[in-house]
Amino acid sequence: MIKKDIVSELHPIFHPKAVALIGASGARGKVGRMFMERFLEAGFEALYPINPRENEILGVKAYPTVGDVPVKLDLALILVPPAAVKSAVNECAECGVKGIVIITGDMGAGGEGNVRDIVRIARDAGSRIIGPNCLGIYCPTSKLPFPMRPSMESGSVSVVSQSGSFADLLTLIASRNGVRFSKAVSCGNECDLTATDFLEYLGNDPETEIIIAYLEGIKDGRRFYHLAKDISRKKPIIVWKCGATAEGSKAAASHTGALTGSRAIWKAALMGAGVISVKSLEETLDCLYVLYYQPLPSGRRVAIATGPGGPAVGTVDTCVDLGLEIAHLSRETKEKIHKIIPPSGTSVENPVDMSIAAIVAPQMYGDVIRILEQDDNVDMLLIIGTGGEEFSKTVCEAARGCKKPLAVALINPIESLLPDYKILTDGKIPVFSDPLRAVNSLAKGAEYASFRRRSSPK
Amino acid sequence: MIKKDIVSELHPIFHPKAVALIGASGARGKVGRMFMERFLEAGFEALYPINPRENEILGVKAYPTVGDVPVKLDLALILVPPAAVKSAVNECAECGVKGIVIITGDMGAGGEGNVRDIVRIARDAGSRIIGPNCLGIYCPTSKLPFPMRPSMESGSVSVVSQSGSFADLLTLIASRNGVRFSKAVSCGNECDLTATDFLEYLGNDPETEIIIAYLEGIKDGRRFYHLAKDISRKKPIIVWKCGATAEGSKAAASHTGALTGSRAIWKAALMGAGVISVKSLEETLDCLYVLYYQPLPSGRRVAIATGPGGPAVGTVDTCVDLGLEIAHLSRETKEKIHKIIPPSGTSVENPVDMSIAAIVAPQMYGDVIRILEQDDNVDMLLIIGTGGEEFSKTVCEAARGCKKPLAVALINPIESLLPDYKILTDGKIPVFSDPLRAVNSLAKGAEYASFRRRSSPK
Repeated sequence: MIKKDIVSELHPIFHPKAVALIGASGARGKVGRMFMERFLEAGFEALYPINPRENEILGVKAYPTVGDVPVKLDLALILVPPAAVKSAVNECAECGVKGIVIITGDMGAGGEGNVRDIVRIARDAGSRIIGPNCLGIYCPTSKLPFPMRPSMESGSVSVVSQSGSFADLLTLIASRNGVRFSKAVSCGNECDLTATDFLEYLGNDPETEIIIAYLEGIKDGRRFYHLAKDISRKKPIIVWKCGATAEGSKAAASHTGALTGSRAIWKAALMGAGVISVKSLEETLDCLYVLYYQPLPSGRRVAIATGPGGPAVGTVDTCVDLGLEIAHLSRETKEKIHKIIPPSGTSVENPVDMSIAAIVAPQMYGDVIRILEQDDNVDMLLIIGTGGEEFSKTVCEAARGCKKPLAVALINPIESLLPDYKILTDGKIPVFSDPLRAVNSLAKGAEYASFRRRSSPK
Repeated sequence: MIKKDIVSELHPIFHPKAVALIGASGARGKVGRMFMERFLEAGFEALYPINPRENEILGVKAYPTVGDVPVKLDLALILVPPAAVKSAVNECAECGVKGIVIITGDMGAGGEGNVRDIVRIARDAGSRIIGPNCLGIYCPTSKLPFPMRPSMESGSVSVVSQSGSFADLLTLIASRNGVRFSKAVSCGNECDLTATDFLEYLGNDPETEIIIAYLEGIKDGRRFYHLAKDISRKKPIIVWKCGATAEGSKAAASHTGALTGSRAIWKAALMGAGVISVKSLEETLDCLYVLYYQPLPSGRRVAIATGPGGPAVGTVDTCVDLGLEIAHLSRETKEKIHKIIPPSGTSVENPVDMSIAAIVAPQMYGDVIRILEQDDNVDMLLIIGTGGEEFSKTVCEAARGCKKPLAVALINPIESLLPDYKILTDGKIPVFSDPLRAVNSLAKGAEYASFRRRSSPK
């Protein structure tokens, strides 16, 4: 019942036919101008700037109040100063606006009492509120933009975040690396709609295949747990749960006013729900790339193929520490590899060490990838190299038919590797600046795959 | 006694007046050509290519044997195939070459017995061997190059590594980020000179202020422990000890034949010796940047200043998990910050959240850095931002007079941040792609500083 409600309530909010920007502005440096610009860049057509002091903003007719807008509004963004938020919500409620996004960081005088009033006003009118202290909704298919301009091409990843900057930066960085998003919602201080509501919506959303969540606190932990566990059976959920320590909890309270809860309980709950737990934005991205670009593995046995020896040897410890197994290559595999790598200073054992020969003749990487992929003792591949156009193209080609997840770690100065990052991500291969990060992401993918196998018996 | 020996024995090897390249070649794709090219690029003058089939290699007169070289040789690099290594060592020993670097990956027929013969031949003649299976010595002041061309400007960091690719890639990447090296030695399979010997030399080397070690196994653990503990009182040692797991140990055996030893014993020994332990090349670099560019902190209390709120809140947990404390800012500090940041959606508590205002007006970062640095409750600073020229220049300027360690984490697509990386590292500020990495490095620096305070009472 609740499920039906949330899905039908949120659908028009994520797919609005007409949007009002209350507090839109043409003045440089104003957040009200920035949102105007983003909506115009995104090509959103039914845009209604609300500003009693302007007739037109950036070439778009402006209206003094929400009530003056001649069409039915599905969504309104409130960008006015704290003292003016309540009357803006009132206007929206009176006009039956379905979704009200309060971008404004606080609610002015009256504090909590004021917030309760605002929520009551909205609820009585059948409106729902996102925020305050948020960035609202990014949805490429609906032409809803985000401030930092992530790609407006649509994809399969969705985000729910109690931090606006997390959602904005994550979608920007990932979209530069080829990931495409279905939806992102920055839900801020959650005076009405919560991260759990959005999780439920995204869990039921056929356009969403991977969910990312940044959470400081959750008001209804039990509902969140059951939802997450249910959704994880079908779609991976990557969660960065902050405020795990007493100090982190205090920081979260200053940030979004969230109550973060006990770390031990959270840890157990997230693990039990099959959620992929991460501890930074970079780790979130790392895991996303492996899940987005690669299949899930059938087991935990990794094969490593390398040029540089030392960094591969050290990586073996990390694999074991993070729950992967070092695959025992079959005799046939070793014989095949033996034929193509030099006899001296190399190894046909896992990690397969091609030594400097692979740097001189990168096609060796492609041959070894094809051999390792055929080995039934191997569930996933980690390729360690130093980059170069021939290397990257060879790996892309060899990986094209690969049914097992594969990740690449490139060790070299970053500025010389940017062309390789482009070739590899265009080839749908996740690429990392350090084998440790690649292993961590592969291991989290394997752990999630194991949860899926356990929870969805065939 | 041993100390005096090692230092005086190794000094001429690191500072050779004349070098022979045995197996030098002019043929493209040969390692013997690559080393010739590197020595010539480095401007090493007294270079003697040894090759019985050539009169001249890349414009340099070649000699049929080491015995034909008309000057006294301090160092010879052996690049010949395995079967020819023993006679090359013989020639070097007969001519009293002080240091013999065996680049060749294995010793051919005879295996261990062959290796013992070779070591005996060298020792009897008063020569010492580095390798086999190594890249030898990089020393800018002596114009000794490394294959991947790290900077030939001299500096204060030295490296000892049982992996050649680790030493080569580390020095390359770090030197692109402004770090300058005194010496690096790739000691490979250590048939004679060991990592512990080089550690002793570098510990006594007045030109070395920071030591980095990549280790798979150590033959004389007790000597290593006492040396490391003694050196750590004066110079930080960053150690990546591989082969910690059974699987890693097996990989190390395939790689350099090292016996890696028990992980528990290693962990306790490294901690007791005040060594900074790391688990990847990237983490090695991260810690290096903080130690190289910044002072050691007087305590563990970190102040965080941020634009993006979410990533800073999550970072608090990481700080606590890694042993840092979230500084309690003084009332005076908070009052000063209150005056310069906007009232809404921000926080004067630690993490100081300047919100989007700091992105619009980056000089706010500079002002906040100056205020935080004055606070006696603060031992170190972490600045989180999204980059931009004005941001980076402001931070450099504010950090110039700062007596406390400061690190910057920038969140944005990497390609847009490269100019910021340049400005910040030119300004001697370590910069990271994720706050987690910055915190980890600051925490390791604080742990080392605490060891120094405990072990060197004033």
